[in-house]
Amino acid sequence: MTYCVGLRLDCGLMFMSDTRTNAGIDNVSSVRKMYSWEIPGDRMITLLSAGNLATTQTVVGLLEEHMKAANERNPSIMEVPSMFAAAQLVGETVREVIKTASDGGLQSEAAFSATFILGGQVAGGNPRMFLIYPEGNFIEATEDNPFFQIGEHKYGKPILVRAYKKDMSFEEATKLMIVSFDSTLKSNLSVGLPLDMQTYTTDSLKRGYEKRFLPEDTYYKHISDGWSDALRLAFESLPDFEMI
Amino acid sequence: MTYCVGLRLDCGLMFMSDTRTNAGIDNVSSVRKMYSWEIPGDRMITLLSAGNLATTQTVVGLLEEHMKAANERNPSIMEVPSMFAAAQLVGETVREVIKTASDGGLQSEAAFSATFILGGQVAGGNPRMFLIYPEGNFIEATEDNPFFQIGEHKYGKPILVRAYKKDMSFEEATKLMIVSFDSTLKSNLSVGLPLDMQTYTTDSLKRGYEKRFLPEDTYYKHISDGWSDALRLAFESLPDFEMI
Repeated sequence: MTYCVGLRLDCGLMFMSDTRTNAGIDNVSSVRKMYSWEIPGDRMITLLSAGNLATTQTVVGLLEEHMKAANERNPSIMEVPSMFAAAQLVGETVREVIKTASDGGLQSEAAFSATFILGGQVAGGNPRMFLIYPEGNFIEATEDNPFFQIGEHKYGKPILVRAYKKDMSFEEATKLMIVSFDSTLKSNLSVGLPLDMQTYTTDSLKRGYEKRFLPEDTYYKHISDGWSDALRLAFESLPDFEMI
Repeated sequence: MTYCVGLRLDCGLMFMSDTRTNAGIDNVSSVRKMYSWEIPGDRMITLLSAGNLATTQTVVGLLEEHMKAANERNPSIMEVPSMFAAAQLVGETVREVIKTASDGGLQSEAAFSATFILGGQVAGGNPRMFLIYPEGNFIEATEDNPFFQIGEHKYGKPILVRAYKKDMSFEEATKLMIVSFDSTLKSNLSVGLPLDMQTYTTDSLKRGYEKRFLPEDTYYKHISDGWSDALRLAFESLPDFEMI
């Protein structure tokens, strides 16, 4: 499995992804699930992927290949005029990849499935973030729906719902992401460290802060341990039930 | 869906179940998912159910019918000599019900699936708790694995993992259950109030404390609101990340 989150904040966008991939529990390895395309001053686009690794890597591979052989009718991700057009391009690509893999092959369609979070900004537009389904269609993050999760989303959702604020700083949002990822890591073996993080500052049109949290990262460890203690204290602060 | 939890504590066993049942999101109603069989001084057995309602109600119906027509070779749940034998009886019953429903009917086997938590004590044995699978086999709660969840288990698991202690009182455990259920209710519409709760005190061999938490219950509301605030405070107590 996988866990990836994209947050829409007043100050910009923020992305985090785990790196674990597995084919059965006896075949585990580590792979990057965050990809970026940047033309400083013109665009910064980030893609997070969950699902069948062959599908997600082929989608990214095709997007890269296409950059070399784009034309006016089919501009590449480096040339699309808007984030909306970028989402359409990724959607078409994933639909194509899944269709090809399913066509006459061994397995059912579900096994080739993949889902994406695409966020960023293209000059002339606002920062936007989309959730792209395996069917190729997509939805956009809004004020009412300010974050997307893909992969194993359930364990890490309650804290996102409760602690997210749109005016958070990237520093505070990093803490939120790490608590959400830590809850997921503790419950699902198929989500694992290291974690990749990236920020995008509104209107900067360039790569923001990037970091890979390794298992021995002191901040990660501090939050992971601290959150267990803080949760226990929070729990103890509430009154016990009275059986009357 | 459904959410049910069974806890194994030093002081006894504790059960909680929601009451929502649905056939599609436009067909929702409320139904009890907690059943008990009691002979004061001899046995107290409680069953929680998740899954296809026709299956779970037929299982309980057959267990009840069987009480009227039991024989020495096939004792009823009121006569089985141990909790282990009770788990076998429930397991055989669910296997039979699913087999009958799947045999030549319209749907695939999965649609008739159901899972159970069975806990209690029969005179001469210890309190025991089992998780019974749709296949009819089962596992037992142990010190290492002191609680079972069935139905929508993911949202409510992180707090169980972090705040459960085997020497908790029933009063504190009620608080834990309510926090776990509240996290689930907030994220999955197919889990809903009211909640049924029951305790069983070790060696009492009779029904313990029972309560139905209605939506307007003051303790439930207090914990639900208080937990949101306590979580936010816990979150704020941790240091923000420093982007250096």
